[in-house]
Amino acid sequence: MASKYFDRKTLDFILEDVHTASSLSSLPYFEDHDAETFKMVLDSAEHIGDTIMFPNLSAVDKNQPELVDGEVKVHPSIKSYLNAIGEAGLLSADFSYEDGGSQLPLTVSSAVGFTLVSANNGMLYSGLTAGSARLIATFGSEELKKTYVEKMLSGKWQGTMCLTEPQAGSSLSDINATATREDDGTFKLTGQKIFISAGDHDCCDNVVHLVIARIKGAPSGSKGISLFVVPKILPNGELNDVTNVGIFHKLGQKGVPAMHLGFGDKSNNCVAYLIGQENKGLGYMFKMMNEARIGVGVTGAAIASAAYQASLEYAKERPQSRRLNEKSAVDSPQIPIIQHPDVRRMLFFQKAVVEGSMSLLTEVSKYYDLSHSLEDVNEKAKYHLLLELLTPIAKTYPCEAGVKSISDAVQVFGGYGFTEDFSVEQYYRDIRITPIYEGTTGIQSLDLLGRKVLMADGKAMFLLAEEITKTIKEASQTEKLQPYAGKLGDAVKRLSEVTQHLMKVAGTGDVELFLSDASLYMEVFSLVTISWQWLKVANAAEKGLKVAGINAEQKAFLESKTKTMQFFFHYELPKAEGFITRLMDSEVITVLRGEEKMVF
Amino acid sequence: MASKYFDRKTLDFILEDVHTASSLSSLPYFEDHDAETFKMVLDSAEHIGDTIMFPNLSAVDKNQPELVDGEVKVHPSIKSYLNAIGEAGLLSADFSYEDGGSQLPLTVSSAVGFTLVSANNGMLYSGLTAGSARLIATFGSEELKKTYVEKMLSGKWQGTMCLTEPQAGSSLSDINATATREDDGTFKLTGQKIFISAGDHDCCDNVVHLVIARIKGAPSGSKGISLFVVPKILPNGELNDVTNVGIFHKLGQKGVPAMHLGFGDKSNNCVAYLIGQENKGLGYMFKMMNEARIGVGVTGAAIASAAYQASLEYAKERPQSRRLNEKSAVDSPQIPIIQHPDVRRMLFFQKAVVEGSMSLLTEVSKYYDLSHSLEDVNEKAKYHLLLELLTPIAKTYPCEAGVKSISDAVQVFGGYGFTEDFSVEQYYRDIRITPIYEGTTGIQSLDLLGRKVLMADGKAMFLLAEEITKTIKEASQTEKLQPYAGKLGDAVKRLSEVTQHLMKVAGTGDVELFLSDASLYMEVFSLVTISWQWLKVANAAEKGLKVAGINAEQKAFLESKTKTMQFFFHYELPKAEGFITRLMDSEVITVLRGEEKMVF
Repeated sequence: MASKYFDRKTLDFILEDVHTASSLSSLPYFEDHDAETFKMVLDSAEHIGDTIMFPNLSAVDKNQPELVDGEVKVHPSIKSYLNAIGEAGLLSADFSYEDGGSQLPLTVSSAVGFTLVSANNGMLYSGLTAGSARLIATFGSEELKKTYVEKMLSGKWQGTMCLTEPQAGSSLSDINATATREDDGTFKLTGQKIFISAGDHDCCDNVVHLVIARIKGAPSGSKGISLFVVPKILPNGELNDVTNVGIFHKLGQKGVPAMHLGFGDKSNNCVAYLIGQENKGLGYMFKMMNEARIGVGVTGAAIASAAYQASLEYAKERPQSRRLNEKSAVDSPQIPIIQHPDVRRMLFFQKAVVEGSMSLLTEVSKYYDLSHSLEDVNEKAKYHLLLELLTPIAKTYPCEAGVKSISDAVQVFGGYGFTEDFSVEQYYRDIRITPIYEGTTGIQSLDLLGRKVLMADGKAMFLLAEEITKTIKEASQTEKLQPYAGKLGDAVKRLSEVTQHLMKVAGTGDVELFLSDASLYMEVFSLVTISWQWLKVANAAEKGLKVAGINAEQKAFLESKTKTMQFFFHYELPKAEGFITRLMDSEVITVLRGEEKMVF
Repeated sequence: MASKYFDRKTLDFILEDVHTASSLSSLPYFEDHDAETFKMVLDSAEHIGDTIMFPNLSAVDKNQPELVDGEVKVHPSIKSYLNAIGEAGLLSADFSYEDGGSQLPLTVSSAVGFTLVSANNGMLYSGLTAGSARLIATFGSEELKKTYVEKMLSGKWQGTMCLTEPQAGSSLSDINATATREDDGTFKLTGQKIFISAGDHDCCDNVVHLVIARIKGAPSGSKGISLFVVPKILPNGELNDVTNVGIFHKLGQKGVPAMHLGFGDKSNNCVAYLIGQENKGLGYMFKMMNEARIGVGVTGAAIASAAYQASLEYAKERPQSRRLNEKSAVDSPQIPIIQHPDVRRMLFFQKAVVEGSMSLLTEVSKYYDLSHSLEDVNEKAKYHLLLELLTPIAKTYPCEAGVKSISDAVQVFGGYGFTEDFSVEQYYRDIRITPIYEGTTGIQSLDLLGRKVLMADGKAMFLLAEEITKTIKEASQTEKLQPYAGKLGDAVKRLSEVTQHLMKVAGTGDVELFLSDASLYMEVFSLVTISWQWLKVANAAEKGLKVAGINAEQKAFLESKTKTMQFFFHYELPKAEGFITRLMDSEVITVLRGEEKMVF
């Protein structure tokens, strides 16, 4: 096992030097915070990572949850973890004072999440609790808030999100779970939900399910979906009618039970409490969606970080062969593989994915904070549009590129990477879910091209171009960065051309054709966005290099950022052109036409 | 589980319609064979796949080999499998009559391998036995041949290849295993070997290890390596001094034990028999390398085939959402996901990878047959050069693209793909070793650019261009294929340009710089090669479509081939340009320069 799972120095650099996180404390909502409080909370996360999470990485994977006599047994370290983050206030960190939180910016709590998840992504119970508690805190009645939020944020009560049903995965409008109104204002719920992460376990005192369902007689489709609180144990102490129908055994993230839950299966007596208004459930969920998706992006980046650190350490230590210009020296000792260009390429790629993703996630989290806490209405709206536009990318890129990045980590280990002797095989399994849950890459891509690019008459795209232009202008001031400023400008122009081309297709009214290659549009948009983030990182690095009296270590650290930016521009950004060629190509291949039904 | 793991109709089409396998029977060596004997042997493989292998897919994965009291216990179905292929003559099929085989072309035995491996790649014991038996048959003394070959080809004795040592993975010249000559002409062997597939198990009567080692006093480096036969049980019935030091638990291919073996650990009395001459061992291994590498390419394509079939079946059955142009129809039933363009793209990609790979592997296998069995010396040499040039690609593309292909299979299943309820999660794990073993992708890429492209003053490249030109010319005769003939011509020209550029770098004498992006050159070369294969497939399909009186099903089958060719040219081939941009780019990024030691 590697000695570390993330690079704190880089995380601090991204937060402060690149994205000036502490400037958020100029906003009244965050006025009690500063760089010092940010540091404290990150120290606390790192301590929990070091002492409870990372040491149990393999244990929670190897001892996966089991359903025994209807109860879910999980690894006991989960309890230590939940207690520790509850006590450290990490679960509630970005909640308001009113809801028992510390009003920490999401910018910082995303960094906390990155730290924790990179230490052990098989302990991912807490994000679900925070997300569901936030739904109750935001849309629930005072009664519901009082009953649930504090207990959940203490780490003692688990929260879950119950959306997916066997017949309705990506298509939430097709759910069948049904709620019937009772005389006392509560509801009786029936239905089946699957893939419910942390849907039950023995390391908490209660489980609070947030469930979407249709109230009898509600309109069909997404307009008839309501949101309910369904506790495992009712406020009166009795067991609610929620059954653990089954447990899914999975490729990865084995530490987290994925449950099939039955509501009302036993005695048709599953009590549910409506959150907010009838038929508004999907709207409430969507209002929380940006955070949830940023959270999954953080998960992808974090697992990739852990694999990168492991393969980096291995590459520095593992001797194999000689440098290609010294091949004849068979009697000289073998060299560490980090000296081979092919290995360096794989390490650069991982570094570029992990740090580029973290920079984007920090950027997007900051947009979230600004859009929630700025006072100026126009400024708020501006950051909200940027947040909306970039969230599908912040969810997708770290997960999709993370899968490839970890595959490279495995490759760096060679045959050992395929064995259980090292952690990379686990990371390779763990990360594969991230391009699927919380909206698959296909769904994110439809959202990006079909909704976000078009929204507000394309204003978000305009705002993004403005932001990128600022970065380009700054880079143009430094000779070393000028060529890259030029490359990014060209890339933005190409993205704009391909977008305009697709808008013409949209204009024909053939939505299916317009969106048929949305996933490839996502690839192009991601490459441009991450290039932008890397140029921003390089701007900060070059600025740091101009500071008088920096030491050799700091100099090397900053130079490595610019070098990795160069890698991304020379090795990754050129791939955009292949996708653009396809996107500009009018030959229809993947859209089903009547006569082609037998292709497969 | 899907009902099928490969598409026999397509396999037959590739063998006969695309590559005219039965034309090989015009060669004296294959004169007893024809399309009918090919069909019989494929039927036999499919029967074993259907009855013994595919039904045990999950069982051999879930009940992995364990080391108990020094002995390796494997799943009992392995014994049924080994007996069955032994009895059916599949292990010896492509051996000469003299060695007890049927003189079947490799072209057909590769198709047999594809069938078997796609049914269950966790039963991959047999390829190792065939490969090691072939080494003994080709280079061993009459005594060794008599003692081992027949027993091995019956399926009762297991063969292994013992190359890797803990300190010498990709760098075979750094092995330490040592052989000391005894008075009776045998040797005493000492040393450690790791990752020895099927290195021991309880479903065979003996294990025959082929081991590379240095004879005491041999020259250092690759020129001092000899090859030995080391049986687990000696001809006199006594146990040899070979110890099962440990068993590696792995990410995938769990059915096959990967052993750490110790030679001479117990009593310094491990008896070894030299094969051929001293210090020629690596040369013997290399002579078998093309076949072994084609075999791994077949493995990659076969696992990807099984995953493709599973996801195709799922996509046809799984209802989800509505077509994008009919989104408002929320009350209409959900449609099978195979109708969504994004899913179709992922299915097309898998089909293109699996069938394109199989076509390349058939091509290369046929080069092998021609280079071995033609009488004309010049023709033999021609096919040998083509075989040498394309083997690293035939090993790498099916494995690397297969990893991505299976990732798409998982994605088609959505959340279910991540669960153990379906086979794709297993395939996703299983295939990940294939870009590593039998020479990593990095090693194959160095071989391609650093040796094969340069060999015989670039003659192989010239011969390949000739072959591709024939395909282009044929395609130019069919209106529908003309645009693709043009695209392939352009792609070949670009490959030639990038090759010339790299040759200039080579001319500077900086080998490390010249080869630093060899893996990206492999990507470009692969895309061009597979495009060529797909155009060849389309030529055969369009030819078939001109036959009078074909039925609707046959018509749809043939049209699907041309359609998939179009997919490859419109979606995959354009990606080459991104890699070419990098390869033509003179900015040095990944080569270690003195001052950059602290990048990572």
